[in-house]
Amino acid sequence: MRTAIAGLGTVGAEVVRQLLDKDELYAQRAERPITVTDVSARDRKRDRGFPMRDIRFWKDPVKMAREAKVDLVVELIGGADGVAKRVVEAAIAAGKHVVTANKALLARHGMQLARAAEERGVTLAFEAAVAGSIPAVEILRQALVANIFSRVGGILNGTCNYILWRMSAMGCTFDQSLAEAQEAGYAEADPSRDISGKDTADKLAILAALAFGVPVDLSSIHVEGIEQITALDIQRARELGMGVKLLGIARLTEQGLERWVHPCLVPADAVLAMVPGATNAVSVTGDLVETQVYLGQGAGAKSTTSAVIADILDLATGRRLPAFGKLAAQLRAVPVLVPRDRTGEYYLRLQVADQPRVLGDVLSLLGMQGVSVASNEQPEQQVDPDGTVAVFLTTHRTQEAAVQRALTMIRALPTVKGEPCLIRIEREV
Amino acid sequence: MRTAIAGLGTVGAEVVRQLLDKDELYAQRAERPITVTDVSARDRKRDRGFPMRDIRFWKDPVKMAREAKVDLVVELIGGADGVAKRVVEAAIAAGKHVVTANKALLARHGMQLARAAEERGVTLAFEAAVAGSIPAVEILRQALVANIFSRVGGILNGTCNYILWRMSAMGCTFDQSLAEAQEAGYAEADPSRDISGKDTADKLAILAALAFGVPVDLSSIHVEGIEQITALDIQRARELGMGVKLLGIARLTEQGLERWVHPCLVPADAVLAMVPGATNAVSVTGDLVETQVYLGQGAGAKSTTSAVIADILDLATGRRLPAFGKLAAQLRAVPVLVPRDRTGEYYLRLQVADQPRVLGDVLSLLGMQGVSVASNEQPEQQVDPDGTVAVFLTTHRTQEAAVQRALTMIRALPTVKGEPCLIRIEREV
Repeated sequence: MRTAIAGLGTVGAEVVRQLLDKDELYAQRAERPITVTDVSARDRKRDRGFPMRDIRFWKDPVKMAREAKVDLVVELIGGADGVAKRVVEAAIAAGKHVVTANKALLARHGMQLARAAEERGVTLAFEAAVAGSIPAVEILRQALVANIFSRVGGILNGTCNYILWRMSAMGCTFDQSLAEAQEAGYAEADPSRDISGKDTADKLAILAALAFGVPVDLSSIHVEGIEQITALDIQRARELGMGVKLLGIARLTEQGLERWVHPCLVPADAVLAMVPGATNAVSVTGDLVETQVYLGQGAGAKSTTSAVIADILDLATGRRLPAFGKLAAQLRAVPVLVPRDRTGEYYLRLQVADQPRVLGDVLSLLGMQGVSVASNEQPEQQVDPDGTVAVFLTTHRTQEAAVQRALTMIRALPTVKGEPCLIRIEREV
Repeated sequence: MRTAIAGLGTVGAEVVRQLLDKDELYAQRAERPITVTDVSARDRKRDRGFPMRDIRFWKDPVKMAREAKVDLVVELIGGADGVAKRVVEAAIAAGKHVVTANKALLARHGMQLARAAEERGVTLAFEAAVAGSIPAVEILRQALVANIFSRVGGILNGTCNYILWRMSAMGCTFDQSLAEAQEAGYAEADPSRDISGKDTADKLAILAALAFGVPVDLSSIHVEGIEQITALDIQRARELGMGVKLLGIARLTEQGLERWVHPCLVPADAVLAMVPGATNAVSVTGDLVETQVYLGQGAGAKSTTSAVIADILDLATGRRLPAFGKLAAQLRAVPVLVPRDRTGEYYLRLQVADQPRVLGDVLSLLGMQGVSVASNEQPEQQVDPDGTVAVFLTTHRTQEAAVQRALTMIRALPTVKGEPCLIRIEREV
């Protein structure tokens, strides 16, 4: 199978090296040779650990996608729009299969690209786009195909999990943990797409389409990041027998489909609470299998390469499936549930003036909205330099709309400083 | 696709019900209808929750496998030999595909059946035979196909994990935990195949063939069960920061392939140490993905049905892979490593006379064999009615052969009562 690789960054170069190093193994598995005939990158000369002499080099990846005499174009340039999108579109238009690891592209343009691939009779494959090497796409489309799913999601961003895990395991601050994640290579120099939850949302949009047969729809996902989480929250969570994790979950109920990315308090003995370091965890609930959880590396050149090559070998053996398990036209939107529709428990941290009666005022406002408080804690020793103290509350199960109404009034209290921190408690993960 | 089901126990009946209930969904996924045309069971009349009127009933499942006009025979009778084997052989000989959940059959006759299927040009599929609904077979044969594996295995028996988990979480004795497992439906009335490790060994034999391209070879697996494990071991393990788990692991090193099933002490923060209840966990290490762990239900009618139907739909969509990933003739034996070849740490529990000098004698015998003791503990309060006390030792890394030589002499000491309990410490799981 003649293959073109667009993008020779760490992943692209690793894909080429693996295809060259293990050519006999892969040819045996695919029952035909996989040959890298064309590549495109910015810089031809850089040494990437493989010989370029038998490979045609293209300066322009879109031109390569259009003109190279290949069966398959592998897009590893990245980015939601721009050249990556043009490469994929050109390859499909030219009747070539596409393998991509580009979650941002799929989350925004997945429907359009899937339709184009169907019309042209080619395959759009993207196992590497969700949770790196964890075979989430294959599991949802094939291995668990007998199931009707009710929930999918999990820990889909290694950077956030690493930061929260370091804060929890070592008592580090957010900033220390982020700096360590950057040093260890788990976080980018600009980590904002990770810690804001946006990267998780891209992956969740894809998972939800695969599990529930809904169109890929990034706009219906409620997204919060972990910027607000402090060491105090982690410590208080532990006292409550909980851990703090950034989860992305899509859950189908009779009312509709909820899709959210936000930090959660989860029971300390839940599998997702125990996921260490930069590990990803994909959790799937189906009517036959109950809940399964898959743990593995969510990023890194080799892990991503594993998924990219699995897609290539699938194509080589002639496996053809619609991108999202069904034809694009068969994907059906369902009612969108938003956090205000949620009923559940909540954790609140408020920074308040160290005065008597403040807690009483807060509790009154919650009570007025019918929010029943399960615990409150005001550690005595921790008076901040500005004369404020942290107050921690948890609620019984209640409507989120009521909590939000109460919070609007609590924010307006002169004795409440800064922005209250609300974290949802998720016992069933 | 015309399908015959041999065996209508809890799994067989669930498979038929699902195929009937979700016929449209499955027909859409497979792009053709899946029709149960023939079934075989002991008792025709029993109500199994589906109508029998359009299904041909056979008293003799072997005759059905041979004569029914079907594309596929699903063997759900069970048992390593006897009728299940004859059903599979008859179906293959008649040119029909086979789906089976029968691990005992595959562990003993997998090679012969795989060869027969290849010669006849039919597929032998068995996703349900290993770890129930966890798609271990698909992951090893397809999703992680880009990898060269160095290790596979994990927690492959829910009964054992449930017993050890109850002993650990609730401080129950072995017998209490077993009785609870039986009450909860996690253990058979006769649990001996489970607690002896034999059931785990069947699954490990299949996993090793898939991961390493070796013939299925039950005889090369070293098997120990959990019968010896007591609440004392669990408690002492916890003091050492470890948990006790029954693992089945196959590991390829430069020296050869080790395949074993035995209880292990594993670090309390390892993912496998945290697996609760009757959950199974399959762990895979490959050169690209590092280690992945998949958690899910390893048994139960619905979980098994999920895997059986995945195989059926794969067949319906025309996916054809050799049973163990390669043609049977391409599977190559590698040197077999046995526990005496192992170098590692060990945990020992001895029951000794409550006399001075006994511990000194034991330590001397270990020292004579070059075994270096890392910790020893003799809790004062626990003198048994027979005047003996438990002594707990751990060793530094050492040759197992040396430990076994020392144990032979320790057993011969008049002050040592009963059989010493040796548990291997596995830090890398």
